[in-house]
Amino acid sequence: MLDLKTASRKESSNIVWHDASVTKQDRNRLNNQQSGIIWFTGLSGSGKSSIACALDKHLHDLSAHTYILDGDNMRYGLNNDLGFSDEDRRENIRRIGEVSKLFVDAGVIVLSSFISPFIEDRGFVRKIVNKGEFIEIFVKCPLDICEQRDPKGLYMKARKGEIKYFTGIDSPYEEPTKPEITIDTSFTGIDDSVNIIIDYLYRHSYIENILPH
Amino acid sequence: MLDLKTASRKESSNIVWHDASVTKQDRNRLNNQQSGIIWFTGLSGSGKSSIACALDKHLHDLSAHTYILDGDNMRYGLNNDLGFSDEDRRENIRRIGEVSKLFVDAGVIVLSSFISPFIEDRGFVRKIVNKGEFIEIFVKCPLDICEQRDPKGLYMKARKGEIKYFTGIDSPYEEPTKPEITIDTSFTGIDDSVNIIIDYLYRHSYIENILPH
Repeated sequence: MLDLKTASRKESSNIVWHDASVTKQDRNRLNNQQSGIIWFTGLSGSGKSSIACALDKHLHDLSAHTYILDGDNMRYGLNNDLGFSDEDRRENIRRIGEVSKLFVDAGVIVLSSFISPFIEDRGFVRKIVNKGEFIEIFVKCPLDICEQRDPKGLYMKARKGEIKYFTGIDSPYEEPTKPEITIDTSFTGIDDSVNIIIDYLYRHSYIENILPH
Repeated sequence: MLDLKTASRKESSNIVWHDASVTKQDRNRLNNQQSGIIWFTGLSGSGKSSIACALDKHLHDLSAHTYILDGDNMRYGLNNDLGFSDEDRRENIRRIGEVSKLFVDAGVIVLSSFISPFIEDRGFVRKIVNKGEFIEIFVKCPLDICEQRDPKGLYMKARKGEIKYFTGIDSPYEEPTKPEITIDTSFTGIDDSVNIIIDYLYRHSYIENILPH
């Protein structure tokens, strides 16, 4: 190992860094899985967070190494300087994408749950990671059912005009054209949704060493 | 488990989320460690990255779950919109702190290696995590030795005036007043530095279940 005191300039350069560094493959091997981003997109009330949370629990119980990124830990921390203008919404998703990528590099299966209404923004996240590291899950649900559920009372506020540019009401939602998985929560429950995703992860070798056949 | 289709409004609210969510403690238990931020601060050329990298390798070989945040993966990704003005430097450290906190929440021991010259900025990171989750390591080294090493040729450029506001030359470095660990790399090599930190982590129960007595 390098002794800084006696090292030549060449020795103390980046060469040493790369020789010793732990790679994404090393971290995946330790975690016994293939890391990636499971990106949930859909209207407010479609069931993204409920499915992500149940999936996280299920994967954790199988000893998979996971983490959830959602409005709770992003909007109040890293992105607490961002509002809801078009520019800020784009920056919000950009940062979430970059953080998701760091987790993938750390060997973690990261579950990112955000309305993320724009194709271009989701496409950005897909592009910054390797092929197979971005699993887009379209949590599909008709607007009227989402509005009926309205778990946070947000649709009611949007209809009253208390929230502007609310996705589905006065701001568009662009459906994914080729998502890896589509789940229609108007007739698929959480248990079944989780099973669909677990099956996908198993068949595509993300967790093949963890789950029994 | 909740079926969205048949769920009442109350059932589909945040209550479900919290019932099922995986906690930091759960993730730490799975990883067999206590997560935290190991924050390396010091002049350019002091040896921060070399020590962080060697420590990461050592911890990984012990099956600890780690990740490194440094200029390479932060400045070219999440923080690629930031320059080097006072405001941007502060925002750079703020974001690194928030991302470090997410990794702690994910049960990971995160090694953050940045000059981070200002007491206030490092204090911000310490404040946003729980007591014991921030380990400040002052990588101490006299300026003339750092300048002699100059692994990236940055001091030479700073002396020529090609880089402005370079820490140690024409921008101040505020030494930590109460760091958890101080390592003087003008007489401590990398192996010894790593051993000092490993010993600290062991004695303070971050990795007590991983390392043999």
